[in-house]
Amino acid sequence: MSLYGGFTVAEPVWSVDPRTGKPRERVAVEATAEQVDDAVRAAAAALPALAERSVRSRLLRGAAGLLEEAAADVVAVADAETALGTPRLTGELARTAFQLRAFADVVDEGAFLDVTIDHADPDAKPIPRPDLRRYKIPLGVVAVYSASNFPLAFSVPGGDTASALAAGCPVVVKAHPDHPATSELCAGLLRRAAEEAGLPADTVVLVHGFQAGVELVRHPLVAAAGFTGSIPGGRALYDAAAARPRPIPFYGELGSLNPVVVTPAAAAERAERIGTGLAASFTLGNGQFCTKPGLVLTPSGPDGDRLVEALTSAASAAGPGVLLDSRMRDSFLKGAAARAELPGVTAPVEAGDAGELSVRPGFLTVQAADLAAEGAGDLLLEECFGPLTVVVRYGGEAERDAVLDRLPGNLTATVHLSEREAEAGDGPAAALLGRLTAVAGRVLVNGWPTGVAVAPAQHHGGPYPATTSTFTSVGATAIERWLRPVVHQDTPPALLPPELRDDNPLGLPRRVDGVAQVAAASA
Amino acid sequence: MSLYGGFTVAEPVWSVDPRTGKPRERVAVEATAEQVDDAVRAAAAALPALAERSVRSRLLRGAAGLLEEAAADVVAVADAETALGTPRLTGELARTAFQLRAFADVVDEGAFLDVTIDHADPDAKPIPRPDLRRYKIPLGVVAVYSASNFPLAFSVPGGDTASALAAGCPVVVKAHPDHPATSELCAGLLRRAAEEAGLPADTVVLVHGFQAGVELVRHPLVAAAGFTGSIPGGRALYDAAAARPRPIPFYGELGSLNPVVVTPAAAAERAERIGTGLAASFTLGNGQFCTKPGLVLTPSGPDGDRLVEALTSAASAAGPGVLLDSRMRDSFLKGAAARAELPGVTAPVEAGDAGELSVRPGFLTVQAADLAAEGAGDLLLEECFGPLTVVVRYGGEAERDAVLDRLPGNLTATVHLSEREAEAGDGPAAALLGRLTAVAGRVLVNGWPTGVAVAPAQHHGGPYPATTSTFTSVGATAIERWLRPVVHQDTPPALLPPELRDDNPLGLPRRVDGVAQVAAASA
Repeated sequence: MSLYGGFTVAEPVWSVDPRTGKPRERVAVEATAEQVDDAVRAAAAALPALAERSVRSRLLRGAAGLLEEAAADVVAVADAETALGTPRLTGELARTAFQLRAFADVVDEGAFLDVTIDHADPDAKPIPRPDLRRYKIPLGVVAVYSASNFPLAFSVPGGDTASALAAGCPVVVKAHPDHPATSELCAGLLRRAAEEAGLPADTVVLVHGFQAGVELVRHPLVAAAGFTGSIPGGRALYDAAAARPRPIPFYGELGSLNPVVVTPAAAAERAERIGTGLAASFTLGNGQFCTKPGLVLTPSGPDGDRLVEALTSAASAAGPGVLLDSRMRDSFLKGAAARAELPGVTAPVEAGDAGELSVRPGFLTVQAADLAAEGAGDLLLEECFGPLTVVVRYGGEAERDAVLDRLPGNLTATVHLSEREAEAGDGPAAALLGRLTAVAGRVLVNGWPTGVAVAPAQHHGGPYPATTSTFTSVGATAIERWLRPVVHQDTPPALLPPELRDDNPLGLPRRVDGVAQVAAASA
Repeated sequence: MSLYGGFTVAEPVWSVDPRTGKPRERVAVEATAEQVDDAVRAAAAALPALAERSVRSRLLRGAAGLLEEAAADVVAVADAETALGTPRLTGELARTAFQLRAFADVVDEGAFLDVTIDHADPDAKPIPRPDLRRYKIPLGVVAVYSASNFPLAFSVPGGDTASALAAGCPVVVKAHPDHPATSELCAGLLRRAAEEAGLPADTVVLVHGFQAGVELVRHPLVAAAGFTGSIPGGRALYDAAAARPRPIPFYGELGSLNPVVVTPAAAAERAERIGTGLAASFTLGNGQFCTKPGLVLTPSGPDGDRLVEALTSAASAAGPGVLLDSRMRDSFLKGAAARAELPGVTAPVEAGDAGELSVRPGFLTVQAADLAAEGAGDLLLEECFGPLTVVVRYGGEAERDAVLDRLPGNLTATVHLSEREAEAGDGPAAALLGRLTAVAGRVLVNGWPTGVAVAPAQHHGGPYPATTSTFTSVGATAIERWLRPVVHQDTPPALLPPELRDDNPLGLPRRVDGVAQVAAASA
């Protein structure tokens, strides 16, 4: 919104082609405070209709189907707005549909309700115990802040929306300005899926605009928020959520270095394979992954040199690419240049401007000793979003650990071990794994962190700033963010919700008098 | 701490007898910033020793035993400092020991680890899936802020400490100034239990002083905090936790009105019993319970009148009592007087000064119409800590619901139904239960909220300001506050923690490839 002589003029929202920098089409206008209020109230009105689990599951499966039906259109629009390419976006759409159905399965199973029943015990010590029956209920309207780098999987139809709907929460999504047309298209599909499932279309509402996002997190009827983005933006919204008269949980994913450690034995065994694998991982999607390996501890000496040589070849061969928008491009070029100029830093492959709005991937090297103390090297411990990684050469465990001790929290941490180290079990490899566990939410051995499987055991989160909470935004347990427990005490059977009745009419897995019960019969 | 001419002089901490207002003994000195730092570092050094579950379980059972052995001393000191009386404190000690053992059981069972294993699936759609194995690990040093009103169960050896130790987190407790001697005694027992379990004594460290509490929540090595107390104090610490460079979860229980609704049919059926029960509940422990029923919606008309008459008799007969400290006494007397002076408010039994540092319980009545809109009646919707409750007379469902719609979040909400309403199931009673569920974490039928059973299904928490999170501070799931998930991806079997191995050497309950498994064998 801008003010001209006292009149409020709605700011237009343009879809922009990052390959040309030219506006594609005018998609919408930024929401005013009143429009945000309308959006939240409309979503709040949909809350009761979501109470039935079966309708949520229908909505999620319906949305997955509609997304697949519209795949050609959605991928074309998303590619035009993000330059991420058709193959990647086709894969992302498949993953997004899979994720919607995975949450439908979670809803159908009902384990997330965490049903726990303790029957009354008049003989309990130290005092008689009443009848207590607990389960989880939806928190209310959820605000979802879309990510720039995943226009589908972490945006309008993505994991935050899917898990919130699975929990029974209506969603107001704040579109990312990098893909407003894709956002409108996907919101339309979700709203159609809602109506086809017998729900109000306003079960999912879309708003555009920076200020609208701020209004959203402050709205009294918003009960929780999910966010994927940068540290400054995420922290500002986190602070706003915490400063409300009634604070709300803000589940933000803000940034991650994703450290990798290559042991001397691993480098001795397969330096070239690791160097090549690293190049593929840090340049994937033009380095625009939250899980991009951004700091790679590589041993000093000839084996590490071989790794760096392989990395140099592979990174040099990687073609230039267009970043998501011009602001990110500028920020990447400035960030890469500032890091390259630090004392002790060299750039075997220099990241930089490749002309025609594209950038060239590159990597830096630095000695561990230059990073061990606070000071000039600090910038190297901050994420640089885009196709850049930093190889840190270390001389021994002490140097390696001094760097690890300085790391902020991460989504992932990876170690490359030799075959013998992997088989040997306890000892230095186990100790190293312990150190990595302390600074990350996902710890990988002999792999690359880019790519986050949607699975029950997944955890996509980590110590701050990786996430602002201990929860995950990917995988079955992402639903836990949007629920709160309620216990019913001494409630007459006729008034109990069906989830809490002794005869378990919904066939839910539950814990009764301390004993876990697998579902008696599927609902 | 105070500053005299540049010198820092440690402020003494006195144990005070609330029955006389006289100091009993000098117990300790307030911790300086340096001493808080020492305390946190000492606790942090104990973290690795707590990694084994068996040692935590030994610690918790040992602490329960030592507390019971020292019961006579502990109860005598606690009574001298709090005036809560021997019977109540004896019961609280039994409950505290029970709670310590209940968390030892939780540790031994291991379900809280939430072990989830998804084996690799190269054929998974839309993309091959790696091997993923998740469980939960301790967050780190936990800061515990003791409550005034439960010198044992919500203080040094209470639920926050017990659940944090169960999770594997060392604890720094900030003593409440109302019971510093009890705190020292209990901290000594816990530290002895730690040493007897083979742990460092500094697994539990005690600090005194308001400023020390502020330093504690800001300390970089403190990973989470638990708090039971007032809204102003809790909110200030919550804000400090959120404002840190690396924010931490602050699990605060801040205040609750604990509304009660009596239906016309229930009043018709048993007005006298409800009135008498209410008097017993709101005066229990001199009204110094977080779950004291503070707002009672009672029907207009003769049945409601009978309830108020019975309440009048019973409340008049309730003897005076000494509150926890003089500050609370002043605050109670002022709060009760200010509420009694509001327009439309009457005081059938006037709460007030009963001489000799004690106060008389009382209650107020007001018409629902005077509370339906924002304005003069707002103060009646704020908790008044101490033996005071507010009876709100309502003429019908619309008046009742208008008041319920204005309530802030609560720990509990209670409804008194007639026998017929309780048996009838769906309809108005179910709708009313739904309304109460929206504003509370525990919903009771035909009971009183004072008294919180320690049980797996318990939930002691609710929408803000009842708690600052969606978690409970009582019951088995209180342990969830001090853990974070970590997933291991493609980790070689020899390097997996035993909790995540295929052969399940610890006999843990877990979820494997989406299927819940009860423990194969107990460890």
